[in-house]
Amino acid sequence: MDRKTARYRQSASTAALAAVAMGKVPGTLIIRGGTLVNVLTARLETNMDVIVHEGFIAFVGDASGHPVGENTVVVDASGRYILPGLIDSHMHVESSMVDLPSFAAGILPHGTTTICPDNHEMTNVFGMKAVELFWKTSESLPLKVLPAMPVCVPSIPGMEDAGASIGPGDVRKAYNEGWAALQGEQMNFPGVIFGDPDVHAITAEGIKAGKVLTGHYAAPGQLNGLNAFIASGLTACHESTRADEALEKASRGMYVQQRYGTAWLDLPNLVPAILENPEMDTRMFTMVTDDVTPITIAREGHLVRVLREAVRLGVPAIEAIQMVTINAAQLLEESRWIGSVSPGRSADILLVNNLREYTMEMVISEGSIVAENGSLTTPIPSYDYPDWAVNSLYLPLQTADDFTIPVPTDIGGNVEVRVIRLIPGMVYTKSERAVLTQKGGALHADPDRDLAKISMIYRHKAHIPDERRRSMGFLSGLTLKAGTALASTVSHDCHNLLVIGTDDEEMAVAANAVRESGGGIAVVQNGRVLARLSLPFAGLMSLDSVEKTAENLEKVEEAIKIAGCPHPSVEMTISLLGLIVLGELHLSNRGLVELKEGEPPRFVDLICR
Amino acid sequence: MDRKTARYRQSASTAALAAVAMGKVPGTLIIRGGTLVNVLTARLETNMDVIVHEGFIAFVGDASGHPVGENTVVVDASGRYILPGLIDSHMHVESSMVDLPSFAAGILPHGTTTICPDNHEMTNVFGMKAVELFWKTSESLPLKVLPAMPVCVPSIPGMEDAGASIGPGDVRKAYNEGWAALQGEQMNFPGVIFGDPDVHAITAEGIKAGKVLTGHYAAPGQLNGLNAFIASGLTACHESTRADEALEKASRGMYVQQRYGTAWLDLPNLVPAILENPEMDTRMFTMVTDDVTPITIAREGHLVRVLREAVRLGVPAIEAIQMVTINAAQLLEESRWIGSVSPGRSADILLVNNLREYTMEMVISEGSIVAENGSLTTPIPSYDYPDWAVNSLYLPLQTADDFTIPVPTDIGGNVEVRVIRLIPGMVYTKSERAVLTQKGGALHADPDRDLAKISMIYRHKAHIPDERRRSMGFLSGLTLKAGTALASTVSHDCHNLLVIGTDDEEMAVAANAVRESGGGIAVVQNGRVLARLSLPFAGLMSLDSVEKTAENLEKVEEAIKIAGCPHPSVEMTISLLGLIVLGELHLSNRGLVELKEGEPPRFVDLICR
Repeated sequence: MDRKTARYRQSASTAALAAVAMGKVPGTLIIRGGTLVNVLTARLETNMDVIVHEGFIAFVGDASGHPVGENTVVVDASGRYILPGLIDSHMHVESSMVDLPSFAAGILPHGTTTICPDNHEMTNVFGMKAVELFWKTSESLPLKVLPAMPVCVPSIPGMEDAGASIGPGDVRKAYNEGWAALQGEQMNFPGVIFGDPDVHAITAEGIKAGKVLTGHYAAPGQLNGLNAFIASGLTACHESTRADEALEKASRGMYVQQRYGTAWLDLPNLVPAILENPEMDTRMFTMVTDDVTPITIAREGHLVRVLREAVRLGVPAIEAIQMVTINAAQLLEESRWIGSVSPGRSADILLVNNLREYTMEMVISEGSIVAENGSLTTPIPSYDYPDWAVNSLYLPLQTADDFTIPVPTDIGGNVEVRVIRLIPGMVYTKSERAVLTQKGGALHADPDRDLAKISMIYRHKAHIPDERRRSMGFLSGLTLKAGTALASTVSHDCHNLLVIGTDDEEMAVAANAVRESGGGIAVVQNGRVLARLSLPFAGLMSLDSVEKTAENLEKVEEAIKIAGCPHPSVEMTISLLGLIVLGELHLSNRGLVELKEGEPPRFVDLICR
Repeated sequence: MDRKTARYRQSASTAALAAVAMGKVPGTLIIRGGTLVNVLTARLETNMDVIVHEGFIAFVGDASGHPVGENTVVVDASGRYILPGLIDSHMHVESSMVDLPSFAAGILPHGTTTICPDNHEMTNVFGMKAVELFWKTSESLPLKVLPAMPVCVPSIPGMEDAGASIGPGDVRKAYNEGWAALQGEQMNFPGVIFGDPDVHAITAEGIKAGKVLTGHYAAPGQLNGLNAFIASGLTACHESTRADEALEKASRGMYVQQRYGTAWLDLPNLVPAILENPEMDTRMFTMVTDDVTPITIAREGHLVRVLREAVRLGVPAIEAIQMVTINAAQLLEESRWIGSVSPGRSADILLVNNLREYTMEMVISEGSIVAENGSLTTPIPSYDYPDWAVNSLYLPLQTADDFTIPVPTDIGGNVEVRVIRLIPGMVYTKSERAVLTQKGGALHADPDRDLAKISMIYRHKAHIPDERRRSMGFLSGLTLKAGTALASTVSHDCHNLLVIGTDDEEMAVAANAVRESGGGIAVVQNGRVLARLSLPFAGLMSLDSVEKTAENLEKVEEAIKIAGCPHPSVEMTISLLGLIVLGELHLSNRGLVELKEGEPPRFVDLICR
């Protein structure tokens, strides 16, 4: 339910809620005798009852004098803890490789009842059509979806080509139409702090619309820049890697969204800010998932996994719970709607076994029981997508020749090339060099030296000049064997087709396998497709469940291991090889982009003369 | 500056703020080397600099590397504490008997930089014209005024007559026009909890408009009702008198606005909730003034007086400061604008000598120094009011005969009458009875037995039937001497003309003295006006300064003492004698109204048969 709908429903229900609270009529659901984790006061209140009426909480206290109706659902909470539903204030649904209904079905059993998805992956593919479609798919879900308007599409205009671009007018439109509830992560922090007028024009739209603006400030220790960023209106950031950085952000008025995703595991490095300052007010600290794979959700849970880890690391339980409930609600300026178990709030309520494991025994969302003991109890209907949404790959059949790297005729013998060094689990790469011997006027992969080819192929509908249709480079760090390749349209942020391989033929096979799936990931060895994950929705998401998608992704991960790379979840690292806002060397569809600290990004040649 | 204007200004300034933060250009003001009271983290940060650019904070930290311009104002804060400007989230300007510009001039030197005035006194007089006018007078002030839309005008429809009434359509209009920032106190809590549709229709307008709704729940211990009230959307309340009540409200999701006004001094009774629960999160606790006389402001200060008292009572200083800064800002869902000294926020900054006395050495509002060492340094222009605003008394000349209480001819000898017993300093009265001997077919005051006459005379422009033009009763508790009377148009909530006296002639003289002033208070003894406070603006406010009005009010208080009543500030208690939402016996222009606990209000006869 979106905020406006919730306001209308609440405004029409106040008299009914009052009658229920007064004990004149029964509520629709009553929870009896649990221990309330009161996130407002940070106190535990034992033997508490909660009366829910339709979507809202009517009463919290001793309900022994209140009537129970014939149709009142009665829940025994004795021996259990009552928590508010968890709020993930920054995340990307696309990272979980399923669409929104499947995502909702996947996370509700784990107690996340509100998400703030920045859907900038699919917006890179479809532009404003994605923003509108995403909002529409959220409408009837028993999950609160507060969409964050993407503001960095593409990540660096002029150096890469996505399917669309987003400007200030688009941002304004999204707010006017009600398609977005807050402003998505501003990743172009150099643009903000150095005063890029285009970036500030987008920031201005968020401020004028009264939206909460979220940021991405990744320069720890650069305090002038941090102040400039916050002064520009960005009051939340999930991009902290050090405890001192987190403390500085909180102190300067920026909510710290401590991240603990599948691959980016900052939380353990941030909690010392809290543990070493036990007297500190922690209201500015929250926790988020940012990016989690379907495997993480299916095997470990969603935001509750982050909560569990925080407590394991030593954060006091109630404080940790506040970070994923009331603190997040206050970040969003929505604490009258979500974030606490209080009268008038949406009835998003969890029953858990204890305050260490947080096993979800029951999840109530908007007044209805949606999950029990880890299983969904309410069917969530699938969404009927328009054709353009599930057919987004505009790509000719690939051949081995397409992956040739010719050497200019004036260069003879050995050739020095730039090499992208991937480091599994890290968001950045290193820029290296290698000397290759040309054969037949071209350069080839050399698996013995861990040198694969990498290619980025434009795959969107928009027409672009031929010279931007594909680019080539070399990659090390994946240790791919001879005769292997992989291809993926999960390739931040433009989500063009990324192909990596040690053999041109295999690269073509992998690329065509993905092409046939309408998007996704394929791993190939000796002409055989070892595993294929079909992601037809925007080339990023399956239409299967989280569980099914997790299984398919596990097969892909297994295949990548067979192909030579043993690191877990390495597909997440691979998916960043085209993200040119990161250092040091990445590949866009226009070519290699180098980004070194303190310098603007620049194109560099593959062959060093 | 209102919120919308602030948003536009900030949206246009972000690049400039970023440039200042980056040290590329100087700010307009720099504060050097103070101890920052960081209300976000509850930590003290020593040797901190703050750079302000125009109305906003650009940088907080070590500014030794930042440039200082020719026109940069440099403030040395060494040895001083840096605090955010104080936020009073519930108050009535009219109680201070001056208009808004004078009020701003009076409180800014005391460090209050944001007020949320519920102007329901003047709205009882003028209706929506008052709401619009109030908003207009706030526009150019160096004080943030977040008007709270009055919702209880009159307090009990059908039992009294004000100059206007407010319905749901008016509330909606105020939000649509931008005249109000939040919803004013819903005093009719029985209407809310028992489901009065008219009251819920008004509540619905606030919820639909996304406004914070403030309440007035005055039934400690009635927890069903409290839940019903909060479930109806009211999330802030200044009407707590007991610590357990305050704790219950905070626990159930209602901000506690601990009151410490001139006469209603609840704070000492509430702070045990905090002192006895030192581990509690106090984010739901704030402090407000509600009603303070100009004397209190001139002699003791404004919200800082409440802060000082909280600290004196034992509340830890930083927690107490949070209650009048960040907690209030979060109550208002405006913490990105006000409530902390952080980049991007409005530059509302205080320098104080220590954290006990809070002597205001400097007050900066919206980037400008507005006061130093208790004195205003910026002129605040007066407002040119339309004629209707300063000529609001529609009242014929009064004569002694107008105050006669005739006895019906079928009643002979002694007559039992109802008597309102005033208790100085209390908001409620007691309903008593007395036996009087009629003389000449009428009943008379009896000062020897502390029995004065009391009259409520309709004084607004609207036409009403003759039988509602005036009412009579008896009053004890003021111990007025023979030959004395007082009259006042400060008479909550309808602000009709209240006249009290021991002699009909003197009552007429007092009433006519107020009539001549166009509203206000007059005290009379033996035909002589002892003191007169002219309040021509709505019959409630002077157009003088706080200081001048305080002096005149002190003369009135002195005169009341001469007339027989020694209690300090008793005019505040007197002003509630017409407030029929309070128990037990009050006088509206339609007659005596009795309100006993658990019963609806009802008209009762003066003469008991």
